[in-house]
Amino acid sequence: MSYAQLHKHFLKIAHLNHLSAICNWDQAAMMPSGGNEARSAALAELSVLIHQQTTAGQLAGWIESAEKEALRVEEQASLAAMKRRWQQANQLPETLVLAQSLATSTCEHAWREQRKKNDWESFKPNLVKVVELAREEASIRAAASGVSRYDAMLELYEPGINCAQLDELFGDIKTWLPDYIQRAEQLQTAKNIITPTGPFSIEQQKALGEAAMKLLGFDFEHGRLDVSNHPFCGGVPSDVRITTRYDEADFMKALLGVIHETGHARYEQNLPKAWTGLPVAEARSTGIHESQSLLFEMQLARSPEFTQLLAPLAAKILQREDDPAFTTDNLYQFNTRVKRGYIRVNADELSYPAHVILRYEIERALIDGEIEVDDIPALWNEKMQAYLGLSTEGNYSDGCMQDIHWALGLFGYFPSYTLGALYAAQEFSAAKRAIPTFDEKIAAGDLEELFAWLNTHIWSKGSFLATQDLMTAATGEPLNARYFKRHVEQRYLSL
Amino acid sequence: MSYAQLHKHFLKIAHLNHLSAICNWDQAAMMPSGGNEARSAALAELSVLIHQQTTAGQLAGWIESAEKEALRVEEQASLAAMKRRWQQANQLPETLVLAQSLATSTCEHAWREQRKKNDWESFKPNLVKVVELAREEASIRAAASGVSRYDAMLELYEPGINCAQLDELFGDIKTWLPDYIQRAEQLQTAKNIITPTGPFSIEQQKALGEAAMKLLGFDFEHGRLDVSNHPFCGGVPSDVRITTRYDEADFMKALLGVIHETGHARYEQNLPKAWTGLPVAEARSTGIHESQSLLFEMQLARSPEFTQLLAPLAAKILQREDDPAFTTDNLYQFNTRVKRGYIRVNADELSYPAHVILRYEIERALIDGEIEVDDIPALWNEKMQAYLGLSTEGNYSDGCMQDIHWALGLFGYFPSYTLGALYAAQEFSAAKRAIPTFDEKIAAGDLEELFAWLNTHIWSKGSFLATQDLMTAATGEPLNARYFKRHVEQRYLSL
Repeated sequence: MSYAQLHKHFLKIAHLNHLSAICNWDQAAMMPSGGNEARSAALAELSVLIHQQTTAGQLAGWIESAEKEALRVEEQASLAAMKRRWQQANQLPETLVLAQSLATSTCEHAWREQRKKNDWESFKPNLVKVVELAREEASIRAAASGVSRYDAMLELYEPGINCAQLDELFGDIKTWLPDYIQRAEQLQTAKNIITPTGPFSIEQQKALGEAAMKLLGFDFEHGRLDVSNHPFCGGVPSDVRITTRYDEADFMKALLGVIHETGHARYEQNLPKAWTGLPVAEARSTGIHESQSLLFEMQLARSPEFTQLLAPLAAKILQREDDPAFTTDNLYQFNTRVKRGYIRVNADELSYPAHVILRYEIERALIDGEIEVDDIPALWNEKMQAYLGLSTEGNYSDGCMQDIHWALGLFGYFPSYTLGALYAAQEFSAAKRAIPTFDEKIAAGDLEELFAWLNTHIWSKGSFLATQDLMTAATGEPLNARYFKRHVEQRYLSL
Repeated sequence: MSYAQLHKHFLKIAHLNHLSAICNWDQAAMMPSGGNEARSAALAELSVLIHQQTTAGQLAGWIESAEKEALRVEEQASLAAMKRRWQQANQLPETLVLAQSLATSTCEHAWREQRKKNDWESFKPNLVKVVELAREEASIRAAASGVSRYDAMLELYEPGINCAQLDELFGDIKTWLPDYIQRAEQLQTAKNIITPTGPFSIEQQKALGEAAMKLLGFDFEHGRLDVSNHPFCGGVPSDVRITTRYDEADFMKALLGVIHETGHARYEQNLPKAWTGLPVAEARSTGIHESQSLLFEMQLARSPEFTQLLAPLAAKILQREDDPAFTTDNLYQFNTRVKRGYIRVNADELSYPAHVILRYEIERALIDGEIEVDDIPALWNEKMQAYLGLSTEGNYSDGCMQDIHWALGLFGYFPSYTLGALYAAQEFSAAKRAIPTFDEKIAAGDLEELFAWLNTHIWSKGSFLATQDLMTAATGEPLNARYFKRHVEQRYLSL
């Protein structure tokens, strides 16, 4: 049976992906610097092998005949997910993949120094090359699927989401966000928030992070917490590796980071086990993945109810039981401060979407050929002024050169961050409606019903449903921005 | 050029071996238990891939034409090493490899419990099957290379060493070893050795291990120290991963273990870099590898001179500067105690060869068909009586069931341990002769000339020379047991 052959073949690819995931994690979390060259070469070799297996000649025939076989509904979804993976791998000619690999690696490598020097002029030609190749990629993918160039790139991260939907969602947000940010900032000026002062030992911070992971149901039989420069969630579903970074002056950054990654991790740890290794058992999309981390970090962990758990836990483990900075009320205020700034990764929950919408609008126009690389700085400044009231004129380092994404050729990725925030608000609201005395349960540390809801509606679904169907089944309606709007109104404007 | 094609092909295999080495290390040192099933499957898949690449159809032709090409001497050695790897991988039919994999995994898995229960009768049929298949393997390899069955197995670990040489070396040792062990034990009864008493915190022990590694030149830019149940040296030359196991009651076990693995590690870290990834740049043999760990642990670290460095270092880091157990003299006596026992892995330097010779004699007769599995316990008891004066009658757990090697089908491996001790004594003696005021330099912590000697004569040679040529070039004579004999006489009988 062709479906059975495909099943076997994709499990083989999963074994190779397993090794890639673990060695990539090791490279970031364990490897001494001198091991980098050989590791990169070994991982590149493995990527070639995985690509070869994903585009193997026999797959076309197997897929064609499997589509004629009598398959169960789940198998049909599995077949569709395998076909999607195969198509995406097959669309690009090897010469383009190679050219992109060279251009992005050159651009990203030089960017590290150029950003420090605010050197847009040197960065520009490298980025032009990357954009040129990304447009070529987008054209090929667009031609194959019959959508616009940027839609074809979006499809890589958020299958089923297109520009028309984004324009509606983000267009709505833009009408109220700048005003909300200003009002929230003003409301907070009256508050006296105490910043917890360090040093907080790394050992204690690690113990606190692990206590939070335990509270949040992280399965330590199938995962670990370690340290890396750029926190991430890696590994494989049976062995999820999350990382954080400790700052002795600020325990909250690592703690909320660990909680964020724990959201990603629980999704991975609870993907449908009977289908492990197959594309259909992977996370639905980058945005749905982000919705789990943001549900944990933003919706849950920064809520007043959860802070009733977190504040005494932190005070106890960090030995600050008499410190006024560690009261529930103060830590809640501390974790919900709003302050406009230049840097996306440092942004608070409320102003974050402004950073994302700005990037979406610029990268979409760039890929669709409406603007050129030369136009970016002026547009960036214009939009920063409009959305956040900040000028980035002449300041490329804190402006259009702050992110690694474009240097790496990742166009279509940014929207996932804010889609994740919208999904998360809508999911959390649905869970809240479904669970009696929800707030009381959270405050009492009784989180099992929330996890069960997430498991039933999101985690265990893998990629069996299209994103909008997943959201409708889980929340009763397709994705919209209302829940996020209501959430930020309640959290940031109601005092 | 065919040689160039082979070169490229084997570098590709090296990349896969790299991933295998790191994921195997991770499995032992990092992986949570729940990750094991998926990891084992992924590593098995990779083994199949590596085997396929090592036996790829085009290799025969490439090797044949490369042998006719005008190659530099080093390239000729590299070609010979590639050919040897290819031949060994090609000799066995896949059905045999599969049958062995099943039989050894069954035997080893059941052995874990059977050993605890002293259950020889249940272990026996599993071992019979493993031996049967090992004999088949040995026959095939013997037929291909025109040597005896056991010699063909030895060749896998100690190329160039055969039974005739082992009989001469081990036969010599057997004439004096039982007597030396008894005399050493008697001499030591008069001594009052203080056992350092714990607890010693794991944190301090780790700091001590790392200080010793630093003293011994371990390159932390290209390696790490971690924890695993069974200490080993893994990873790749650019990123060597050593592990240890801490016991709060006994710091010396982990410390000497770390020093042992550091010997392995420095060999790996200093293999010829221009040839990295090719078989010719790998360690010469299992025994030569063991000679580096034993040179560090036995020849160097347990010497009176090095103990002058180690004792104050340990006292300082473990905060025992006033503890009489931490004097140089006491720690030297402590590290050179001789006490006959049943268990090989716990044996002291002097009685260790008795354990190895016993196993060699039994496994050789077993593979060559002179005895059967049924005969093992009686032979074991007979030889333990003869060499160490101990009876193992009815005690299988501490007798012929104590090691994992036979359950895993590793016949031909045991001799490497004692070959390593002989190589190490001969190498250390040659280095000592070559370096003026050697003992004073060691006691002063000036180890650079010793490392330079090892680098020149052993590490940088990789597999370019045959083992005997390597030893002759390094020490002026082929391997013999005289240096080991003289070493143990000086250390254990001269007081």
